[in-house]
Parts: sequence; C-alpha cells; structure tokens
Amino acid sequence: MQGSLTILGCNSALPTSERFSTAQVLQMLGRVFLIDCAEGTQIQLRKFKVRFTSIDHILISHLHGDHYLGLFGLLSSFNLLGRKKTLNIYGPPELKELVTFQLKYIEANLLFKIEFHAITGKEPRIIFEDKRLTIETIPLKHRIPTYGFLFREKKPEWLNIKKEKIAELNIPLREIVNIKKGADYTTDEGVVIPNQELTLPPKKQLSYAFCSDTAYNEKIVEQVTGVDLLYHEATFPDELLARAKETFHSTASQAATIASKANVKLLAIGHYSARITNPRTLEKEAKEIFENVIAVHDGMVIPLS
Amino acid sequence: MQGSLTILGCNSALPTSERFSTAQVLQMLGRVFLIDCAEGTQIQLRKFKVRFTSIDHILISHLHGDHYLGLFGLLSSFNLLGRKKTLNIYGPPELKELVTFQLKYIEANLLFKIEFHAITGKEPRIIFEDKRLTIETIPLKHRIPTYGFLFREKKPEWLNIKKEKIAELNIPLREIVNIKKGADYTTDEGVVIPNQELTLPPKKQLSYAFCSDTAYNEKIVEQVTGVDLLYHEATFPDELLARAKETFHSTASQAATIASKANVKLLAIGHYSARITNPRTLEKEAKEIFENVIAVHDGMVIPLS
Repeated sequence: MQGSLTILGCNSALPTSERFSTAQVLQMLGRVFLIDCAEGTQIQLRKFKVRFTSIDHILISHLHGDHYLGLFGLLSSFNLLGRKKTLNIYGPPELKELVTFQLKYIEANLLFKIEFHAITGKEPRIIFEDKRLTIETIPLKHRIPTYGFLFREKKPEWLNIKKEKIAELNIPLREIVNIKKGADYTTDEGVVIPNQELTLPPKKQLSYAFCSDTAYNEKIVEQVTGVDLLYHEATFPDELLARAKETFHSTASQAATIASKANVKLLAIGHYSARITNPRTLEKEAKEIFENVIAVHDGMVIPLS
Repeated sequence: MQGSLTILGCNSALPTSERFSTAQVLQMLGRVFLIDCAEGTQIQLRKFKVRFTSIDHILISHLHGDHYLGLFGLLSSFNLLGRKKTLNIYGPPELKELVTFQLKYIEANLLFKIEFHAITGKEPRIIFEDKRLTIETIPLKHRIPTYGFLFREKKPEWLNIKKEKIAELNIPLREIVNIKKGADYTTDEGVVIPNQELTLPPKKQLSYAFCSDTAYNEKIVEQVTGVDLLYHEATFPDELLARAKETFHSTASQAATIASKANVKLLAIGHYSARITNPRTLEKEAKEIFENVIAVHDGMVIPLS
C-alpha cells in the first residue's frame, strides 16, 4: 500500500454522530494531507488514530461551513499540544482573514507559523509540488468558488536499470547514468542495446482526485481521466435531480457518469444529504452506470495503489 | 421531574469522541437553555435527542474556543432547517462580532433573528427573567472574563390555599385572594385564623448553578448556597494543584470545598483535562470533602428536583 484515504466525515451540511461533515486524510508517498476540515474533525482524527503531528498541509475546498468550521478548534489544539512546525493551509483567499480573526480570540500567542496559500482562478493550477507528487486544483461548479484537488505522483526523473544487465554486459559506471536517463548502450563491439532492454518498465503513478461540492460538470473529466481513485460527491439520489441542480450538487448517477467518462479505477461517493438513511441506495444507483463504486462511511480507509 | 441537565460534553480544551468539550442542555420549568456550545454540540444534540427547535436561549460563559466554537455550525444548521423563531444569545460583548463575521461566510441570508445579550460586570446580574425563573450571572475567576449562570425558580406570588379549609370555614370568594396573598382570616364570629393554618407551606424553589471555567473562588459560595445542583469544573486531580492555579482552573477537591461551603444538594464535576483517563478518580478525591458528588459523562442526564 503506497497510500490510503481515511474518511473522517461523509455527510453534507447536517452532521450526525454517525456521519460527520466533510473531512478526509490522504496519506500518499510519505506525506499526509488533511482535505477539508468540518466541525469535529479533530475528534475524528483522534477516533481514527491519525496523529496530529503528521499533518503539515490542510486543503480547504470552499468556504461553506461544513467544509471548514473544524479548522479553528484543530489549530487551537495544535497550539495546546505545543506544535512548533509550520502549517500550510490552502484555500480561498478569504480563509486567511477568517482564521486570523478567530485566532485573535482563541489563543493570544500561536506557537507555530501558518502559511496561507490562496487558491484562485478558473483553470487548474499546481498549488503544491515536491520531489514525488503534485497537487493541482480542479475548478468545480458550485454556488461559491470551489475547488477539488488532484494528487498525482510524479514520473521518476530516472529509469530503473536492470541490475543483471550491468553484470551481463559489463556496463561501466559512467554509462549507467545515461541509460537511466533513457539512452541506449553501445557495447565495445559496437552493438547497440536499446534502452528498453536495459531498464525496467516505468511504474504506474498513483493518483487521487477529490471532487466535492459540485454540480454535474463534464469539464473535469479530462483532468481526472484514469485516476486510481475519484472521490465525487453524491449528495442526492437520482429522484432528487431537480434539487441537486438547484443547490449545485450531484446525484449518485451523475457522479458515476463522470467516473465512467473519465475511466477511473475506483469511484468513492459521499457528501450525503441528511435525508439519506442508507448510502447503499446511492451506491446501487451509481453501480447501474459505473461498476467499481463504493459509498464511503466515517472511518473507512481506502487503500491507494 | 421538574427539570433536567443533559451533559453534551465534559472535557476541557481537547475533545475526544468519548468526551466532547463543554456544552449542556438545561430543561427547567418549561424552558430549554443551551449552556456553552463547544465544537460538535449540534452532533451531540442529535445524538442525545434534544430537538433543535426547543432551543431559544444559548448562554456562552466565555470566549475560549472549547466553549463556543460549535455555535457557528449550529446556527448554520438552524438556518438550513428553516428556523424562523428569534434566537437569544447571551455572552461576552465580542461574541456578536464573532458570530456576525462568521455568518457573512456561512450563509448569506439568515432566516431568523438573533438577539445578542452582552454579559459584563464584576457583580452578579440578572440577564433573563420570566414568570417562573431568573438567570443571574456568576462572575468567575479565569484568564479572560468568564461567567457562570445561576438558574433559580421564582417564589410564586401567591400562596396555595388548603381547599378543605374553604369548605370547612365557608370562606367567601373575596377573602380567598387576600389569604393567598398572606392575610389571616377572621370568621363571622370574630375568630382570627392565622394564614399558615389556611395555606400550604410554600414549595421549595428549584435552582441550578453552572460554574466553568474558574480558579478556586470562595466569592461564589454565598451566591450558590443551597442550590439543588452545582456544576463546578474540576479540570485537574489534586496532585496538579499548581497547574490548576497557573491556568486558572480548579482541582476536584477545590470543587468539593466550594460545594461543601455552599451546602449544595448535589455537586456535578466535569471539564476534565485530556490527561484524565478515568473521571472516577476525580470523583473519589472530591468525595473525601463532599459526599454527594458525581463525575459527569457525555450523555448523562441529571434530574433536577
């Protein structure tokens, strides 16, 4: 398992003790990302055993209360627990003002630094990049500016050389770097060995796309095509299509249609309306269109591989 | 049962899924009061089956996050559920600014009116009064301005007359009102019947005092003397007395000392530090000083009678 997604909350605006509002933890390639931070997120983090200190990056999709109201309590707890490490928060520009205003009341002295990264624009944009992965925004279609996030493992710069070939062909050290960069190898006898015979086929890169909240929006299909895991909101059952349109949310079938068009490996649906008593009914509706789908629940851990 | 206190959260600043931070519901004499509103209060209200629509009064003791951060989500949910009734919020003056600022983001149009009642002053003050009860502030001793609340049933204006006496003495209607107001009755034969022979002894009035957060403060003893129920914070065990002093909190023994000096009927302790694994240890410490004590837990309902 190279990564996992832990669901901390999967309800829409009205949380219950069984289904908190949106928050998830993505563990991927050695990093931990908290995606959205509804009321009670700190409680769920404890319940589902995610260490507070593992979180250095928090991404907020949009400024509806059910996606960010747990942030203030979490920051306050970080501080009480003596956090010193810088925390990165990605979200709409107004989030900085919101947090700063609250912190005035919560704690006089924050022991750690917060770096705010404002998310804007109508086109996808890379908001995080390290050696192993990038995070790109997915502009969604909601009542206020809202972004999904596409986490994508980078292709390694260098190929992996087949160790047995080094011995077999007696390849000198200075040539190895060139081969790793993609060059063929010419033996002392002048025989050209093509690079693909010398190197392992490149590994598939991991990818996860988070899309909540959004009306049905085919524009995102190209961007999320082929991802290992797509989380797409499915607030309403199909019979409430009109309500979904009116509130800029999606139905289970609409989520499945996006997953199908984008040919993703696995679709996870969530962000259920409070009137949904059994999310399996949504899963069933989605399955009619896209086979590989799961309706998430709080505490569910989905492996990423 | 003329009233009850439901504990929604009993931890101090770091909530867990077993122990949320401070919030309680007092049902008393036909009214429902939400006292403090930590993160997750709306979740606990649903879990412990308190109807959202029953709440018209919310009292906030002070502006530390673990006592008010659930307010924004609750207001947002009230709105989503179509609340129309005016909501009364009592708390430090800055609370109005805090709520107004958040509401700008959460919901463009609030469907109901909020009336803010600013709590100030160093002396007890009545902040609510109706026909049957009053709520008085209890100025506490904490790092920032903090108030407890004393809920007290009013004495009835009129006494209850013994029905059998009306028949026995053939008391005319016009005299009944006077007797209810405390007058003696003189029979046609000139015999004076003292009022106490004609009326029932006045019923005891219900009372509840909420005191969190506070350092040990004997000043409150007089005000809470004889209450039916005193909730007093007991953040720390006795061995952490120094830490309690430093943070302006109380130990279990200090809470019990106040209860003992005030001769209350029942002491409930809560607001536990995150390091307390079993609140019974605090209860045991308190019992050494004051016998009638319970350590509360989330979901506990304490009858008031």
